[in-house]
Amino acid sequence: MARAHLAVIGGGQLARMMQQPAIALGLRIRLLAEGPDVSAAQVVADSVVGDHTVLADLEAVAEGVSVVTFDHEHVPPEHLRALAAAGHAPRPGPHALLFAQDKGEMRERLTELGVPCPRWAFVTSAEDVAAFGFPAVVKTTRGGYDGKGVWVVREPSDAEDALAAGVPLIAEELVDFRRELSAQVARRPGGEVARYPVVESRQANGVCAEVVAPAPDLDPALAEQAAALAERVATELDVVGMLAVELFETADGRVLVNELAMRPHNTGHWSIDGAVTSQFENHLRAVMDLPLGSARPLAAWSVMVNVLGGSVTDLEAQLPVALAAVPHAKVHLYGKAVKPGRKVGHVTVVGDDLDAVLADARRAAALLTDG
Amino acid sequence: MARAHLAVIGGGQLARMMQQPAIALGLRIRLLAEGPDVSAAQVVADSVVGDHTVLADLEAVAEGVSVVTFDHEHVPPEHLRALAAAGHAPRPGPHALLFAQDKGEMRERLTELGVPCPRWAFVTSAEDVAAFGFPAVVKTTRGGYDGKGVWVVREPSDAEDALAAGVPLIAEELVDFRRELSAQVARRPGGEVARYPVVESRQANGVCAEVVAPAPDLDPALAEQAAALAERVATELDVVGMLAVELFETADGRVLVNELAMRPHNTGHWSIDGAVTSQFENHLRAVMDLPLGSARPLAAWSVMVNVLGGSVTDLEAQLPVALAAVPHAKVHLYGKAVKPGRKVGHVTVVGDDLDAVLADARRAAALLTDG
Repeated sequence: MARAHLAVIGGGQLARMMQQPAIALGLRIRLLAEGPDVSAAQVVADSVVGDHTVLADLEAVAEGVSVVTFDHEHVPPEHLRALAAAGHAPRPGPHALLFAQDKGEMRERLTELGVPCPRWAFVTSAEDVAAFGFPAVVKTTRGGYDGKGVWVVREPSDAEDALAAGVPLIAEELVDFRRELSAQVARRPGGEVARYPVVESRQANGVCAEVVAPAPDLDPALAEQAAALAERVATELDVVGMLAVELFETADGRVLVNELAMRPHNTGHWSIDGAVTSQFENHLRAVMDLPLGSARPLAAWSVMVNVLGGSVTDLEAQLPVALAAVPHAKVHLYGKAVKPGRKVGHVTVVGDDLDAVLADARRAAALLTDG
Repeated sequence: MARAHLAVIGGGQLARMMQQPAIALGLRIRLLAEGPDVSAAQVVADSVVGDHTVLADLEAVAEGVSVVTFDHEHVPPEHLRALAAAGHAPRPGPHALLFAQDKGEMRERLTELGVPCPRWAFVTSAEDVAAFGFPAVVKTTRGGYDGKGVWVVREPSDAEDALAAGVPLIAEELVDFRRELSAQVARRPGGEVARYPVVESRQANGVCAEVVAPAPDLDPALAEQAAALAERVATELDVVGMLAVELFETADGRVLVNELAMRPHNTGHWSIDGAVTSQFENHLRAVMDLPLGSARPLAAWSVMVNVLGGSVTDLEAQLPVALAAVPHAKVHLYGKAVKPGRKVGHVTVVGDDLDAVLADARRAAALLTDG
């Protein structure tokens, strides 16, 4: 096998979808996969099975490769520093990734930068939670995702499970939000940034259900503010690669930062089919220090609907039904076994009529989810 | 390695570009590659090195796989029949592929169907060529491509090399053409057809240099005639997968069939970035008997320019220059060593202003070809 251009740690669907633009750009990926047949390992020629928490496994996949990037945020910071010391550049670097790994660090740093956040505090006891006030959202600083590690606390007893977990916690105000937005940028090592249009992200049960790009009826001034905020965060934190800033649009017309992700993000999947350069291609370009591609949309509207594990268990058998129903739908399956609520694919439709695009994307995704 | 959904014979750039939509649709490709590091073998997890002229190698890659498709037309028909007899469906089948493999068979069959062709005849001697008349184009019936196996014969001595080759030949009239067009369709086993817009193909030295989609200023009646002709040929010959019908648009406003290709074709590469469903995705859908996707263009104009081996020998080092020059260019590199005139990549630009799109695509491709 010839020399790889970059190592990708983690074999989920994000790594899988990086392979498509890697093929176009002639970039060879060496993958560290959790198993021989995980989502990305199915589609990458050069893959190694290993554990991202074991330094020797990271070193093995990075051997001879100068750039290392990620499918997820879970590589321990000390391992990232060891890779960097050995001449393999982790992108984003550990000093940046920390703020996507640890919500306490993220809140402290954003507050220091004057970036608008919900009111927040570290909490270690029932007294701290009571002092913060109710209602609140209590979160583990590390390891939470898709609604896990998050508790809505309306009275003291709601915080008991969180406090019993014995891990660092923060409390945040329960924001009265109109909707959730996501502002994505790609950033190269030298500072070049490409801004994607700000999108609306619609959640169900703490998981992203659908994304509309651009966010409908968004005040242009607020859109500019959100995009500029994402660019500033990427620059101040020295992010390399894609940054997603998940935002609350408040009832009184402000944006507050909810979460940061330093990798391609579910709220940017629409860009594969709806933008000149997808978030996956721009992530690769950014981490490889290649000039960024245009993030311009290809049509007035793009709608992405997730395919979450539902009553359809044989996706392969159901695929023809969805393809026949919506011939202009772009279906993306992740090669994963269906489990209830698990992200196993997504559908994107682009076009000029938002109602039609939304209806078509939902229809195709529903056929893949529940038949 | 889990069971593959289809086998692809041949590891060139067409197989490589099939892998991108295969990833999206969750289709696993098993590849028969000419070597361990050929273009498609670099990007497909399940690949086997072997020779497409050796039946045992074809059987090995088809083991347990019900559908077999192709990167090229060079698998011997008797091997295709043997695969079919053993329960592996070659798509297209040998009865169809024959007409893309053998120009004599193609001319006989199209003539029988009343499909407009240049005047033609089998020739075996100098007397036959003289009787056909000058000027003529003499072609080997098998194995020619990109200008090889083709002689323009203006006087008897011009046919000497061809006649000395000792292989079957045809002579064709030297058509007075305005330009070359290409009409592509995808066709499923049951007969469903998707038509792509008819494009203009511009050749240099017998090799496709650039493609404009749709063909500019094409009489709508002639465009319809060309697309209907491609659909009829696909149907009559029972093609499964993509069919490209290369056409001459004559000075007096007719279309004549030049060549047939039963696979994704260079004149359809624009569709990766310029159509809702690329020719590679619709080829996979067709051979897997999945409903076809919309072949609608995403913008008014798409221009594809080939990157042919030129003075740039280190494509990787030159890539940033091209990406920086045209941030909206879609660059596709094939992972192949640069040799003079060899197809090593292509660039597509889409947009509403043909002059700008053409200039941008040419500029990016020129930077990758000659710096």
